[in-house]
Amino acid sequence: MCPYLKEFMPLLVVGSIALDTVQTPHGRVENVLGGSAVYFSYAANFFNHVRLVGVVGKDFPQEYKQILASKNVDISGLEVVEGKTFRWSGCYEGAMNAAQTLLTELNVFATFEPKIPHLFRDSKFIFLANGGPATQKSVLKQIHAPKLIVADTMNLWINEQRDELLDLMRQVDGLVLNEEEARLLTREMNLIKAGKQILKVGLKFVVIKKGEHGAMLVSPEGFFICPAYPTEHVKDPTGAGDSFAGGMMGYLAKTRDISHWNLKRALIYGTIVASFNVEDFSLNRFHQITLDDIEKRYKEFISMVSF
Amino acid sequence: MCPYLKEFMPLLVVGSIALDTVQTPHGRVENVLGGSAVYFSYAANFFNHVRLVGVVGKDFPQEYKQILASKNVDISGLEVVEGKTFRWSGCYEGAMNAAQTLLTELNVFATFEPKIPHLFRDSKFIFLANGGPATQKSVLKQIHAPKLIVADTMNLWINEQRDELLDLMRQVDGLVLNEEEARLLTREMNLIKAGKQILKVGLKFVVIKKGEHGAMLVSPEGFFICPAYPTEHVKDPTGAGDSFAGGMMGYLAKTRDISHWNLKRALIYGTIVASFNVEDFSLNRFHQITLDDIEKRYKEFISMVSF
Repeated sequence: MCPYLKEFMPLLVVGSIALDTVQTPHGRVENVLGGSAVYFSYAANFFNHVRLVGVVGKDFPQEYKQILASKNVDISGLEVVEGKTFRWSGCYEGAMNAAQTLLTELNVFATFEPKIPHLFRDSKFIFLANGGPATQKSVLKQIHAPKLIVADTMNLWINEQRDELLDLMRQVDGLVLNEEEARLLTREMNLIKAGKQILKVGLKFVVIKKGEHGAMLVSPEGFFICPAYPTEHVKDPTGAGDSFAGGMMGYLAKTRDISHWNLKRALIYGTIVASFNVEDFSLNRFHQITLDDIEKRYKEFISMVSF
Repeated sequence: MCPYLKEFMPLLVVGSIALDTVQTPHGRVENVLGGSAVYFSYAANFFNHVRLVGVVGKDFPQEYKQILASKNVDISGLEVVEGKTFRWSGCYEGAMNAAQTLLTELNVFATFEPKIPHLFRDSKFIFLANGGPATQKSVLKQIHAPKLIVADTMNLWINEQRDELLDLMRQVDGLVLNEEEARLLTREMNLIKAGKQILKVGLKFVVIKKGEHGAMLVSPEGFFICPAYPTEHVKDPTGAGDSFAGGMMGYLAKTRDISHWNLKRALIYGTIVASFNVEDFSLNRFHQITLDDIEKRYKEFISMVSF
């Protein structure tokens, strides 16, 4: 048994585990550890024990499994199946605001049917990282009494499985998506209007991520605008959104408080964790820092946005 | 004599006065009152008396002159010369983040040589709205003992008159520019690095405007990140940047305090004033509001960014 289980509110993430090949103006890395659930786990882990459910192929390097397990991530929900691990390749140019996807090979992730281990079914905080809405819904059926369920999504599902996605949205508490996705989902250009419209499905809150421009929280209790931390040394933005979600959910699980007030703080922690992530390729920067570094930058950030 | 002269610190703006034709998804207006100095004056005017220096052609409608004069704008520096008034035409689509310029007819503005009336030469707060750096410098020679000089610029001057612009920057206290311009000026993609680099010329502060994503203050005393007010009803973004600068400078002139702390507040007031401006075409929205409306939204904004 993990020693944290008593201390922390269990946080479950279901999502992709990938081998990424990324090129930015600062270099190139090949087949590095990536994927939404991985970035999320690493980020959340600074605050709270994480349970990861995902799938990899037989080609998944043993060392990556060890890297995951060495963090306080419970990988007993990691399925290893015949075939190749999900691969993604992308390139960032200029201000590195958007990735140009060069290759997406879903491989074993294409037929992923998440099986939540029995010991994980009492998880209280659930993050459904980017995946098909039907797959995301199948997770919810396996969870007993969740306290907070938050889902991510992407343009593919908005375009191709809108009804399924709307149905998922009625079953979760919060939705995290980026600004283009919010516009696509609502056909509304104005982000505040888009956020309010998304909320109407019955969500408790919506978080709209704006990349280097921060994030916005929309809930029936009001708005919160959270600027991004102005990182000077952006090397690779891959995983920034998932790191943001990880920091946010990790902080929420740790504090067990999902009030509007605490959600604001969670967004700031998400912002800070993501700001570290982009300073190096893959999870490299996360390996170098501790919660102390996060708290230090959190304070610095507060001084930058206070008046 | 204006009754405000004793009460307020004189604020001078030199810049363009235009007849704008604008199309957005919310409608189209033709030959409406616009121009950097006009938007600036209207915005600053909520806080402080404004002295305007600019040029128009003989075709400039008398009613527009009256509209300007009806506000607390001293237009005794408004030159009327033979020829046509500066005309700009632009179109905004989708999220209306950037104007597509359809036409720029400099007309009488092309040969504009600002003559600062003698009564204006004691102005303490000076805003050099967008214009050629040589023209901007010619204004400075005519001012006696300024307290704060802030300049705006644009891609045209950065590309074509870089040295002249750098020379201007050495003669002013603050520079206001948008993010693309900051990147172009420094050839640095990262805005924090860009801001720091611009500062090195010897400026007291740099304000980088990020449109719907807010603004950033960079000074030797630190950074301040100011998100934009999330306006739901954007009808026409024309003049948002100049309104922002007007609100900022108006507030600074009114409070006579150019400390880092007060600059932060000035950025927020600029943000709020600009958020009203974009809610209607031309200066329409400014005609409907008072300082009370600005103060009310200021408080609302504070609650959105506080945590």
